[in-house]
Amino acid sequence: MQTPNLEVPGFRAAGVRCGIKRRGPDLALIASDAPVAAAGVFTRSTVVGAPVEWSRCCLRGGTVRAIVANSGVSNVAMGAKGRRDAAAMAACAARSLAARPDEVLVASTGVIGAPLPMPRIRRGVRAAALALSPGGLRDAARAIMTTDTVPKWAATSVRVGGRRITLAGIAKGSGMIAPDLATMFGFLLCDAAATPAFLRGALRRVAAQTFNRVSVDGECSTSDTVLLLASGRAGNPSLDGPGSPGARAFEDALREVATELSRALARDGEGATKLVDVVVRGGRSEGEASTAARRIANSMLVKTALFGRDPNWGRILQTVGAGRVSIRLPRASVRLAGVTVFRGGASAGPAARRRAAAALAAPEVCIEVDLGAGRGTAHMWTCDLSTDYVRINAEYTT
Amino acid sequence: MQTPNLEVPGFRAAGVRCGIKRRGPDLALIASDAPVAAAGVFTRSTVVGAPVEWSRCCLRGGTVRAIVANSGVSNVAMGAKGRRDAAAMAACAARSLAARPDEVLVASTGVIGAPLPMPRIRRGVRAAALALSPGGLRDAARAIMTTDTVPKWAATSVRVGGRRITLAGIAKGSGMIAPDLATMFGFLLCDAAATPAFLRGALRRVAAQTFNRVSVDGECSTSDTVLLLASGRAGNPSLDGPGSPGARAFEDALREVATELSRALARDGEGATKLVDVVVRGGRSEGEASTAARRIANSMLVKTALFGRDPNWGRILQTVGAGRVSIRLPRASVRLAGVTVFRGGASAGPAARRRAAAALAAPEVCIEVDLGAGRGTAHMWTCDLSTDYVRINAEYTT
Repeated sequence: MQTPNLEVPGFRAAGVRCGIKRRGPDLALIASDAPVAAAGVFTRSTVVGAPVEWSRCCLRGGTVRAIVANSGVSNVAMGAKGRRDAAAMAACAARSLAARPDEVLVASTGVIGAPLPMPRIRRGVRAAALALSPGGLRDAARAIMTTDTVPKWAATSVRVGGRRITLAGIAKGSGMIAPDLATMFGFLLCDAAATPAFLRGALRRVAAQTFNRVSVDGECSTSDTVLLLASGRAGNPSLDGPGSPGARAFEDALREVATELSRALARDGEGATKLVDVVVRGGRSEGEASTAARRIANSMLVKTALFGRDPNWGRILQTVGAGRVSIRLPRASVRLAGVTVFRGGASAGPAARRRAAAALAAPEVCIEVDLGAGRGTAHMWTCDLSTDYVRINAEYTT
Repeated sequence: MQTPNLEVPGFRAAGVRCGIKRRGPDLALIASDAPVAAAGVFTRSTVVGAPVEWSRCCLRGGTVRAIVANSGVSNVAMGAKGRRDAAAMAACAARSLAARPDEVLVASTGVIGAPLPMPRIRRGVRAAALALSPGGLRDAARAIMTTDTVPKWAATSVRVGGRRITLAGIAKGSGMIAPDLATMFGFLLCDAAATPAFLRGALRRVAAQTFNRVSVDGECSTSDTVLLLASGRAGNPSLDGPGSPGARAFEDALREVATELSRALARDGEGATKLVDVVVRGGRSEGEASTAARRIANSMLVKTALFGRDPNWGRILQTVGAGRVSIRLPRASVRLAGVTVFRGGASAGPAARRRAAAALAAPEVCIEVDLGAGRGTAHMWTCDLSTDYVRINAEYTT
């Protein structure tokens, strides 16, 4: 990955080791000197961690001062103690930053059902507060990694209301939608001036098209968290609705950063050997296209075939059909890594199959399916399913 | 598996090699000398094979003479040629048995998108007709195997309307709900006298509780087929509705055979090292309990944990929550292989965890989840997810 400029005026960040994980940094702090507008989207699971409950409450105020996050322990299913620990983590960060506890968003990822080691967390938060720097977002990205093999960041800039604004984001996770040690986090920062309500709308729409389109294994974590903070330092006329100058450009830039992070999440799926772009066209409706894309992205059979470089269009049609999605076979087609392997209701033949098998060796491949039933479209990012995925998840112990 | 008496008065069967697969028998024929009442349930996929379309039509008549089935090629997505081949396969069996083609049910399992080798099929059908014998159901069970590692059969007998009737069945598949080389077939025979409408009702209810409760990988094949044939030789007063003498006993016996076959299917899941019984209680509704059971049975994370003997209740709660199922954590509990590992909203501690890890080494284990939210119950049979599953499905080539 390139190393873009991740400095966003108004924010400082740090990532330190406090000793929750066996090794590596495991505590991240992102802070601003003044309250900033903020919005968040969270897991839709009915089982959520105490940090998610805490952060949802904080966002009701619309402005925040900081995000404190740890990896190694998720603080999920810990009952009243979990709620106390999440509040204590926020309070500790608030003390170091001269903020109120309810101005500090909290995010935890890692083992479910284990207690946070609070003395270590407190020491870590204090150390992180001392280490805060404008260029510290890279360290924060490393501190939220669990089974991730690489830190993930992205940045862009765009003109909004006559001012150049900067957006930067970090993410972690081997899927949105991933193991208990691989909750998805996305923390997005910008220096635009914007109202919390505007940020909320933009983040919801963008997350639906990006983070929510990543699937490694069809799971949705108890702690998935995407946050967007806006410092206002760029001095643009405040974005407060879709009619504001630059509102569209801002959302496009946000989508660009979120897309880059989402692709990085899929590429780094547990055990993955390739990034897979699933594009479905010709659905009877958007909903049916979306169901088809999600089924393909989650199908163990499709994903093992991709790992084996097997241009197996039969498995793709099968999983779409099993989802009760309308498909008109005579008008349907399947392209794998740019090679049409099924069209007009039948195989495109052994030569196409051989070409597709060779093309599937690439580290990024596209599955394009036309359902031949209408105009609905949808896409997903996923990865292949390897023997290493099973090993990582079977051999993982706390 | 025990070797029960699989002879059902009124039926003869055979399994022969015709040369579709690389090795082993691959063509099965089950026949009666006179038309018998029959019913079937089929895949709910929107993409179905020509044999499924053919057999659905045959069953409209209510009586049939035979089932002809092959393994190795599924005759799916072959367009008009596929329909001609399915009809030709039925016609060939009909000639050998002096029956009408529309009295011959057809089932094919194997590669999608490849043509049936019709000359071999025809030779095979003629050879099978010559080999028919009352004890031939075991050979038929072997001839429908694909990635199955063992043939699957079950039988029982029960008093119905003052007469002892015999039920026997064979099945194949590494899941209902399984790879393209592992479509689920269940062929059930009995000598009861019954109307087609009665058989249809009994088979639908029983299949919903048995075959439809097996999941290896959440897939549903294009060719899943369960057939029930009744010769009437037992001489009982014909079963024609729920009020008929022995109707309940008959359905219980049918469920017993279907349950045994379903458990055999889950146990033989591709790469499986253990049979897993998922039992969910305390759902806000039956539907929510069923969603929870199905999510647990299909969760790659739960299944890899089982392979690794990891008593990971966090993953179980996570996948239930991700399914938007109501769960009251303080009243919820999770038992793994008989050991309670989660209750009262928290872990049952490291000693329970160690005991559960040891108990998970058994070849048959039960996951019992109480959602604490109501009285809905549901169950599923599944298996663990091993590195071998990925190898089988990544390295499989036509």
